[in-house]
Amino acid sequence: MSPQRVAITSSDDPRVNDIRDLNSSDKRPDLPGGRGLVVAEGPLVVGRLLESAYPVRQIVGFPHKLDDFLSENEVPADIPIYEVSRELLAEVAGFDMHRGLLATADRIEQLSPEQVLDGASTVMVLEGVGDHENIGAMFRNVAGLGIDGVLFGSGCADPLYRRSVRVSMGHVLRVPWARLEGTYTTWQRSLDVLRERGFRLISLTPDPGAAHLAQALRDEEGRPWEKVALLVGAEGPGLTEHAMKATDVRARIPMAPHTDSLNVATSAAVACWERVRLRGLDEEAGA
Amino acid sequence: MSPQRVAITSSDDPRVNDIRDLNSSDKRPDLPGGRGLVVAEGPLVVGRLLESAYPVRQIVGFPHKLDDFLSENEVPADIPIYEVSRELLAEVAGFDMHRGLLATADRIEQLSPEQVLDGASTVMVLEGVGDHENIGAMFRNVAGLGIDGVLFGSGCADPLYRRSVRVSMGHVLRVPWARLEGTYTTWQRSLDVLRERGFRLISLTPDPGAAHLAQALRDEEGRPWEKVALLVGAEGPGLTEHAMKATDVRARIPMAPHTDSLNVATSAAVACWERVRLRGLDEEAGA
Repeated sequence: MSPQRVAITSSDDPRVNDIRDLNSSDKRPDLPGGRGLVVAEGPLVVGRLLESAYPVRQIVGFPHKLDDFLSENEVPADIPIYEVSRELLAEVAGFDMHRGLLATADRIEQLSPEQVLDGASTVMVLEGVGDHENIGAMFRNVAGLGIDGVLFGSGCADPLYRRSVRVSMGHVLRVPWARLEGTYTTWQRSLDVLRERGFRLISLTPDPGAAHLAQALRDEEGRPWEKVALLVGAEGPGLTEHAMKATDVRARIPMAPHTDSLNVATSAAVACWERVRLRGLDEEAGA
Repeated sequence: MSPQRVAITSSDDPRVNDIRDLNSSDKRPDLPGGRGLVVAEGPLVVGRLLESAYPVRQIVGFPHKLDDFLSENEVPADIPIYEVSRELLAEVAGFDMHRGLLATADRIEQLSPEQVLDGASTVMVLEGVGDHENIGAMFRNVAGLGIDGVLFGSGCADPLYRRSVRVSMGHVLRVPWARLEGTYTTWQRSLDVLRERGFRLISLTPDPGAAHLAQALRDEEGRPWEKVALLVGAEGPGLTEHAMKATDVRARIPMAPHTDSLNVATSAAVACWERVRLRGLDEEAGA
């Protein structure tokens, strides 16, 4: 056992305060009980947290889960590792954590939109997406398809909430993201930062009158735009008219009759795929 | 109040036995406590159940939820409608059902694979997809993108389980589906029914050596195959080698470095989109 690995035997031990009442400790610091910690669960996501820019505070797990994890991951010597039993973890966290391995980290200074856009050719812009799982799924999709970053308009849930981190498979810790300033009716002005950098702004909407997605992603000569920002809104209401008016074009994923729109993260995946595919095929053709 | 609408005032009333201990009543009849009922929750899905081929047994809801629903939906006079309080529903169902509106139906005879394939040009084939939410999401995506049907190989969860029905937005009650016969190592022979009908069988895999999805969906002359079956496996293991060997080609959705594969329902959405898009654009071009 490495010197940094310590067995915790009392649920009152202050060394595991990070994970005490876990359902509130990862809430934003401005919310009741919220400490704003970043919490990673399971070996894959804990490993990605260690590789990220977030300063890890501690790793906590069942003895055999720690054995497995430490045999495959290098943990810096200054990060404490706490062994706990399943019962003790449940008592401290407030519920049964069957995964048996987690880590906490501090938040870091958020990137600015300019930093996210630096060198980017495709980004997603979200408005009113309040569901943590949808935000997490969005990051997983965006990461897998090689999109460069995510910008948040108003009304979006905290992407660093534990459930978002888990559903994203930890990619929310890797894919650059930033918040656009402004309220429900003013954040759209912040889109100027994209326009100034030459991004084509494309709103996704189920509106049958909108352009076909594949066409909206090409310029008049049929070539993919050099820089594209894809905007999506919440499931149900979709993007506000304010937001759509601030974009260059409205694009639709054609839906079969008598069906609903796709889930917001799925719509984003389809749009991102169409974007990278257009560019990828062009590259393969030697353009 | 219509004659068929009855207020239930005792949790022992046998008329609401359909929803008693709801977590087991919709299990397959061959499982402990399983009655195999189809359970729809919420006005959208209850409405789709009424439009489906499944014989509805009863509708149950809070008084104001029933008022809203009945003002917008025609319910045949032989279907009983039971009014319940939130407390009574929670007691009967075994948990708090905040949606406050549900309906039950009997299962119907399953379609044969031949019936699903009749007139179909694009179908999904699933192997080992054991997660009810993934199955539900798959049906939502497949319905939205206008795919003709779904076939189940071995190891898949019950698509009529309540959670699948809910996540599918009720589309599992509308999109034709069937089971292919055989065990883990033999069901792949049932794919012959597709081959005989001229379907191009395409396995989806993250394998970097596989063909690009966009290329796999076209024939040698660059035109979309007339009939396509897209095969997907469970998240994690993916399709078995057995299954992939039984198909014509392996196709990949190219993934960014250091990322995971997409969620299985999301992968299916991307592949279905690519398929309908290829065909759609060709049609728009007058081919």
